[in-house]
This record gives sequence, structure tokens and C-alpha cells, in this order.
Amino acid sequence: MTGPLRAAGPRGRALERDLSALLGAGAASCAPADLWAMSRDCWPRALLWTKAGVAPHPPDVVVWPASTDEVVRVVRFAAERGVAVVPFGAGSGVCGGVVPVKGGIALDLKRLSGPPCIDLPGRTVDVETGMNGQRLEELLSGAGATLGHFPSSIYCSTVGGWLAARSAGQLSSRYGKIEDMVLAIEAVDGTGEILRTQDVPAAGPDLLQLLLGSEGTLAIMTKARLRCWPSPAARWMRGLRFRSVQEGMAGLRALMRSGLRPAVARLYDPLDTLLAVRSGGDAHARVPEPLRWVVEGAGGEALRLALRAPTLLNRLVESLPGASLLILGFEGDGSCASADAREEGELALRLLAPEGADDLGPAPGEKWLANRYKISYRQSPLFSAGAFADTMEVATTWDRLDALHAAVRGAVSPHAFVMAHFSHAYLEGCSIYFTFLGLAEGDTSGDPDELEEAEGRYDACWKAALSAACDAGATLSHHHGIGLHKQVFLPREHGEGMRQLRALKRAFDPRGILNPGKLLL
Amino acid sequence: MTGPLRAAGPRGRALERDLSALLGAGAASCAPADLWAMSRDCWPRALLWTKAGVAPHPPDVVVWPASTDEVVRVVRFAAERGVAVVPFGAGSGVCGGVVPVKGGIALDLKRLSGPPCIDLPGRTVDVETGMNGQRLEELLSGAGATLGHFPSSIYCSTVGGWLAARSAGQLSSRYGKIEDMVLAIEAVDGTGEILRTQDVPAAGPDLLQLLLGSEGTLAIMTKARLRCWPSPAARWMRGLRFRSVQEGMAGLRALMRSGLRPAVARLYDPLDTLLAVRSGGDAHARVPEPLRWVVEGAGGEALRLALRAPTLLNRLVESLPGASLLILGFEGDGSCASADAREEGELALRLLAPEGADDLGPAPGEKWLANRYKISYRQSPLFSAGAFADTMEVATTWDRLDALHAAVRGAVSPHAFVMAHFSHAYLEGCSIYFTFLGLAEGDTSGDPDELEEAEGRYDACWKAALSAACDAGATLSHHHGIGLHKQVFLPREHGEGMRQLRALKRAFDPRGILNPGKLLL
Repeated sequence: MTGPLRAAGPRGRALERDLSALLGAGAASCAPADLWAMSRDCWPRALLWTKAGVAPHPPDVVVWPASTDEVVRVVRFAAERGVAVVPFGAGSGVCGGVVPVKGGIALDLKRLSGPPCIDLPGRTVDVETGMNGQRLEELLSGAGATLGHFPSSIYCSTVGGWLAARSAGQLSSRYGKIEDMVLAIEAVDGTGEILRTQDVPAAGPDLLQLLLGSEGTLAIMTKARLRCWPSPAARWMRGLRFRSVQEGMAGLRALMRSGLRPAVARLYDPLDTLLAVRSGGDAHARVPEPLRWVVEGAGGEALRLALRAPTLLNRLVESLPGASLLILGFEGDGSCASADAREEGELALRLLAPEGADDLGPAPGEKWLANRYKISYRQSPLFSAGAFADTMEVATTWDRLDALHAAVRGAVSPHAFVMAHFSHAYLEGCSIYFTFLGLAEGDTSGDPDELEEAEGRYDACWKAALSAACDAGATLSHHHGIGLHKQVFLPREHGEGMRQLRALKRAFDPRGILNPGKLLL
Repeated sequence: MTGPLRAAGPRGRALERDLSALLGAGAASCAPADLWAMSRDCWPRALLWTKAGVAPHPPDVVVWPASTDEVVRVVRFAAERGVAVVPFGAGSGVCGGVVPVKGGIALDLKRLSGPPCIDLPGRTVDVETGMNGQRLEELLSGAGATLGHFPSSIYCSTVGGWLAARSAGQLSSRYGKIEDMVLAIEAVDGTGEILRTQDVPAAGPDLLQLLLGSEGTLAIMTKARLRCWPSPAARWMRGLRFRSVQEGMAGLRALMRSGLRPAVARLYDPLDTLLAVRSGGDAHARVPEPLRWVVEGAGGEALRLALRAPTLLNRLVESLPGASLLILGFEGDGSCASADAREEGELALRLLAPEGADDLGPAPGEKWLANRYKISYRQSPLFSAGAFADTMEVATTWDRLDALHAAVRGAVSPHAFVMAHFSHAYLEGCSIYFTFLGLAEGDTSGDPDELEEAEGRYDACWKAALSAACDAGATLSHHHGIGLHKQVFLPREHGEGMRQLRALKRAFDPRGILNPGKLLL
């Protein structure tokens, strides 16, 4: 046996036997490849494990329930025996939320993906939570509808994962985050009881909103009723340039407060701007060499050389022109009485001109649209080249936004190369999406301590970043969730609420079997 | 001692002494008038008690804390002794939510009403929860801002009451319900710990949304950060007539889905239409005599005579012209890039014309605006005339709306005269606001059993109404809350969620002192 594949132990084999008896042959497995696949998600720190050939937290067994009733049976089975149950969607999470730190049962929900029930006149779709995001959008599209939810993980994420981690899609300024789209859920709690919320406004406390973002620690969501929309009939895309990030933020805020609802509104900081427009001609003329290696995705030695001195690299960014790119898009289904996408776009241009926006025409917008999912797939080549890329999405109010941006840049600067864009804007504030690029490999390739060193560098970078974000009054996570990764910072966010969270855990999951070791629960 | 005023018992006097020692002189009272004032809200069934000269559920003592810290001290005091604590805002509730059924401490929050902190550039206002609604709106108005929250109780309700019962204002189609406006809260749980939620999107489970609608059973909300808006610069009001309620509903749905955001959109059923336009000239020509007594607010014997035969009265309504009035209004702060109030109004007219809407001009809209709070003050004269008026606000999805309306009308018809309007429309559905007019007095005025008889008639009417609403797939309450009044129906709404609610109660209030006997907790 090489690499992270490891044979199941006797506990795993016993669970496989019992769960196969419970749900039927083929519903459970403790084959090494299955255990490895469920031992991690796309958390970059877990990729370091994979690279080092280890899987520190495999489950004992993987189970594939095919119905809510089967989920109930697995949960009751596990509750009786005190075995952990970790729900698993498609494994695209970037915070280690599905890592089964206490072993037990990895509950893969992919078979909970029967045909969705689309009611376009009622504007709803009923869907099982194991449904793949892109598949759902294709089925909706075939019925003339859209969910309007386009996370960059859409090809490899599920409805259940979205709900568990408060997902935001790229068009959230128009369609909202997943918590704004969900009208009702069905969920199985840690005692195996089924909770179904109504599809009407709640009378009394709202249990639906409580379970969103709970990352499998309070209940396992099995079905959801989501709001859908008629497919957009028209789309309008644009790029605009501001002289500075600060002017761009002011423009974005004015736009959100104007009553216009852009589908896309993403503001890039100078370096991210450079990346976003890098196929656009001579924009690179003044870019210093080491920066260019990074920006142009140079592989191997050049990249590693540059990343050895992140502070220098980050300082070089200060020498860039301060221009900040805004990608702006509108879309509509043609039923809107007030304006269509083009009209709304032109109103936005008129509103943003006095804020200092130069109209760059449709090309930058169209280009962003064509490439919008690619970013998620750049990680592996970077990784092979000895770097790690990671992203941190925090959010705060408009008045604290610029300081948050500066504080995180400053804190991360000694650890990694950092860039950012501003997206998912709302009335009171906005999310900042930072990208960190750091050195994963040490100078001592092949040394057994190399993993520990790499993890240490990764952790130091994140500790600095999250401390700075909390100090600046940001939420810990806007839409990636908490997972293993950010949980030690959770008390900074919730304060006394942590005690309430623990009490909720006891209420929903008295045996403590649901995704233990997450959210500090 | 006559009527409902009753001297405090030894328990009350001891509590008064201890709490005065804890918070200072003048902070606690067990004077009979204070106990009576806190023994009920505006629940019509409690008005029957008042009329009969009884107060079946007085508190033992009333306390007026002036700060969060004082709330904490009272809660800790009560938790140590197992004494009930019932938070009280302004007593405008209509479901008996503040009736202290276990006696104990009535916690009047009116002194928690320091000057709000208005941040118009940030679009937020920080306010203590004892703040009166109209006072807050006046203070905001002075700063060029508005909350956009105008419940008909605004003169006699508080921010805390709004949050506790999921209040909706008359302009909710534009500004949302209170749960859409609140960005953060401070609350004291049943152990005296202070929970403060962040003013940024939640990472992990959302405790804020959990506490809304909890009616004082999980925590006592002491402060809130709410979204505010610049004062509207312009307003556009209109009346439109549809040939039937069904056409009106279809028009309302099309309007909400068009992307337009009316400030006001209220559709009246034929009888409510008649009431709404009754000063409008010859509309009454064809109104049968008994109906006219009711519509014209005839007092005394004529009204009682009519209400003795509610089924007949309800049948007479069928003979009315089926016309249905829509009151429509737009308002804007002038900063909207897409349209101002007038433009949006005209777009709405163009959209609604093909749906069968006749434009009645601005007068019906202006009239509604001028009289919009008066409805809350019609109850007392009716009551004096021997009738009771009550309202039931339920909500459901568009496809179930017409059936809900018919089912509730049918169920209530033998018990009370019933009319309705449709308001608080949203994308997936709409609220129906029913008004019941019934006979409060029996034929045996002066008989000691009279209260029991009146309560029996009242309860029978409501049991029929709520059963029909639940059967038709409606939420129990859209914005009045649950209180004592509707709690037995709560399991119809929450199902397995009731077990979770009870677990939440144990988590937030382990001693069970917070507003016991409500939400079945």
C-alpha cells in the first residue's frame, strides 16, 4: 500500500457488514480508495497531506443512502452505537468541513439526487440535497428556469453543501445567497427524527435559518425547496475602470443603494485587475519581473523564487498603477416592467460616471463571463509547481471595508503573495475575496519533516489573516464556511453565542454524533 | 376594590421589596393599577375580561429596568428563585403574548429607550428595544431617514415587540418585514448571559433569526441595529379596480414578479372594498340593509341585530358587486437610478391594465394613506356597541391563496361577519388579513355566566378560522405572533420542530422563567 490509501480496520469492516445489512448490498464500503476519497475535501491544507502521501483522518466506512428514510436508519444506527456521521456532498469545500476527525461513517449523499420537481409558475424547485449543482441548473434550464446560483464550484458541489456552508454564487447581488433562496427544508437530526419546515413565512422561531451554515453538526439536510426564476432573456456585461480601489468601493456602494440590482458586480484590486485583464495587450509594460512571473503563471523555479520573498512581492504591487477594474453585469427575464438588462446597464453607467468610472466597453465583462469557473481549476498546476493558493472570503460594513482590506494585506504580506476582489455587495456592506499565493515546498524536499513545515507555514499565514479580519470587524466567513480551518476563531465572532451553539448541539444531537469536532462542537 | 384592580399578594410585596433593593426605588411596583396594566395586551379575548371586570392573570410585580445590565440583574434574580419574567413593550399585541399566566415579574422595557444612534451614511440605526415606534420614526425623520416600518400599531408598539412577534408594516412590500430590517441584536437569555450578534452576515448558524418571533420565551432582546433609508422624496398613490378578487390576486402576483417594488399594495375583497371606498358617493346604492348597518358602523341595537345572524350577513356579501380594490403606492428617495416613484407607478399601471385593472386615479390611494392608522382605533366603539372585532393574518403561496380565502370565509361564516384584504405580497405568496366582526354580548346581559359565553363564542370562531387556515397550508401567523391565542395550533405548523423548540427552550432558558406558557413552552 503506498500513498494515502490504507486498508480498513476491524471497526470499519464491522460497520461495512452491519450497514450493508441495514441498507442492502453496495450501500456501504470500506475499500481503501473510498475511505481516502472521503477523508478530505479541497481544503488546501488537506492537499498538503495528499502531496505528502498521508490521510490523517479517514472515515471507518462510507455509506450511500438513497432516501431520507435510509439516512434516518443510518443515523439511528450510529446514535445507538455512538459512531460519528459526517455528511459528504461533492467534496469541493475549502475548509476541511467534511474531514472525519473522529472517524466513523462518511455519509455520501450523492444518491439523494432524484429528479427535481420544478414548478415554474410557482417559482419553486424541490430537490434532494445530493443533487449536483451544474446538473440541477441544466435541468432547470431545460424547463426554462434558473436558480441564479453559480458558485465557482458549481460543477463539483451539491445543494446540500451549499446549504450547509451558506454558499454564495457569482450572481448573488441579483439572486441572493443560498439562504435567501431556500424556502423550506427537510432534515434529519442526530436522533433520527425528521424535521420539515413549512414553505410559508415562519410563525415563531425560524428553524430553517438556524440549520443553514451548521455544516452537518446539527442535522443532515435531505431535501430543499428553492426559489427559481424564468431563464434570463438578456444579459449585459461591461468592464469599468476606477482610478483607485477606494473610488471603486464608493461606486459599488452607490450602485447597490440605487435600487439597481446588478447580476454581477466584482471590483478587483490593482493586482487582481492586472490578472483579470492580462490578455488585454500592453497593460504589463510596467510590471516588475518577479510580479510578472506570478501574474503570468510562470511555473517551477521562477515562481518558487518569487514566492520566497512575499513581502517584497507584495511591496512591488504598490508600484503598480492603482487602477481598479469593476466587472458589471445585468440580466433579466424580460418580464420586468421597469427596465431590461441593457437599460439597467446604461442607467448604471450614468450613475457610475460621476463616481469616476471609465467605461471599458463590453469586452472585459464578456471575458470574465467566459472564464468565470476557471479559477477553481488553477490550483492543481500551482500546487505541482510548489506553491499553494488559497482564498479567504470575509465581509464587513462599507465603513470598515477599506481598513479590512489594508489590514489583511498587511498581515498576510510576510507569509504569502496576496490579491483581492470585492464582490457579493449588499446594502450595508460587501465581501472581500482574498487570494493568497504561498510557498508550499520547503528547501528540504524529501525531508520527513517537510509536511510539518508546510503546514506550519500555511497555518501561520491563516492565523495572521483571520486575526486581522476579526480585529477589523469582519465576519469569519462569507460563503466558504468554517470547517476545521477557522473554528478556533469562531468565539471571536459569536462570543456568548458559543454557549448557545453548544446548547443547540445538545438539543439537536444529544449523542454528539453529527460531524463531531466542527464549529467547536 | 372594583373591577379588575386587585391588591398585590404577599409574594408580590416581597418581590417589590427585593427588586427595589436591586434596582433602586421606583424601579418596581405592585400597585394594583400597575399589575392590571401588565395583565393583558390588546387581545380581544382579554378585552372581554376587562369588560367583565376581571383580570385572571395579573403579574405579581412590575419592574422597569433602565439598562441591559438591569435586565441581566432581574433575570438572574428571577432565575435563582424560579420566578417567571414576562417582557412587556407597549401592550399592543393582539394574541395575549404578554399575559403573565404564571404570575411573576412583568418586565416593562419602556425605560430602555435612550436616544437612538442614527448613522445615515451607514444606513443603520442602533436603538434600545423599549423605544416607541412612532417616536423612533420621528427621530429618524428629523435626521432625514426612515425605517420604512409602519405597523398600524406604530403609536403604541415598541421595537422589541416588533422583533418578538415578527412585525410587518404597511410598506413591507418595499422595506420588508422587521426580520428583513434587523442587522444585529443584543439579548439576555434565561441565565442572564448577554448574547450579541455581529452586524455582518453570520458565519455558521444564525442565532439572530432564531430569536426573532420567539416572543420572549428564549431571550429578552434589549438592543437592535436596524437598517434605515433616506426619507422618501416622492410618493405616488393610486386606486385600481379589478372585476374580481381572483383577477386582483393575479395582478398582484404579476406586479411582485415584475421587479417593481411597490411601497403599498393592498387588495381588498368586495366587502372590504366597500368599506374602503364608503365615503366615495353612491357605491352603496345596492347594499342590503343589514350589511349597511355594519358597513356604516351603525351602533347599538342595529349592529347587534345584524351580528346575530352572521351566516345571513356573510351570504348578503355574495350579492355585492364582485369588484376588488387595489391600493397601490410607490415611494423613493430620489437616489434610485432606474425610476422615481411616479415613473414606477406608471409602469405598474401599464403592467396591470392587461390584467384587468381599471385606474381609479389617486383619490382612493390618498384616502387610504390619510386613514391608515385609524383601523386600530375602531375596536373600542365596536366593543362598546356589544360587538367584538378581531383580525387574523395568515399567509400562503400564490397557488393556495384563493382556496385559503374561501376556506376561512366558509369556516368563520357561522360565527362572525368576515371580510379580508391581501397585503404584504412577496415573490412566492401573500398574506391575507381577515377581519371578523362578532357578537360579544349574550342575550343574558348581567348574567354571571356571560363572560364564559362570550369567550366560548370567541373561541369557537377562532378554532374554526385557524383550523381552516392550517388545512389550507397557511402559516398560523404572518405578523401578529402566536401568544396564548394560537399556540395550540403551533404543532400543526412546526410538526417535529416542536421537539426542537422545546430543546431550544431548555438551551436558552434552562430554568423555564422566560414568558412561560407561551409557544407551548
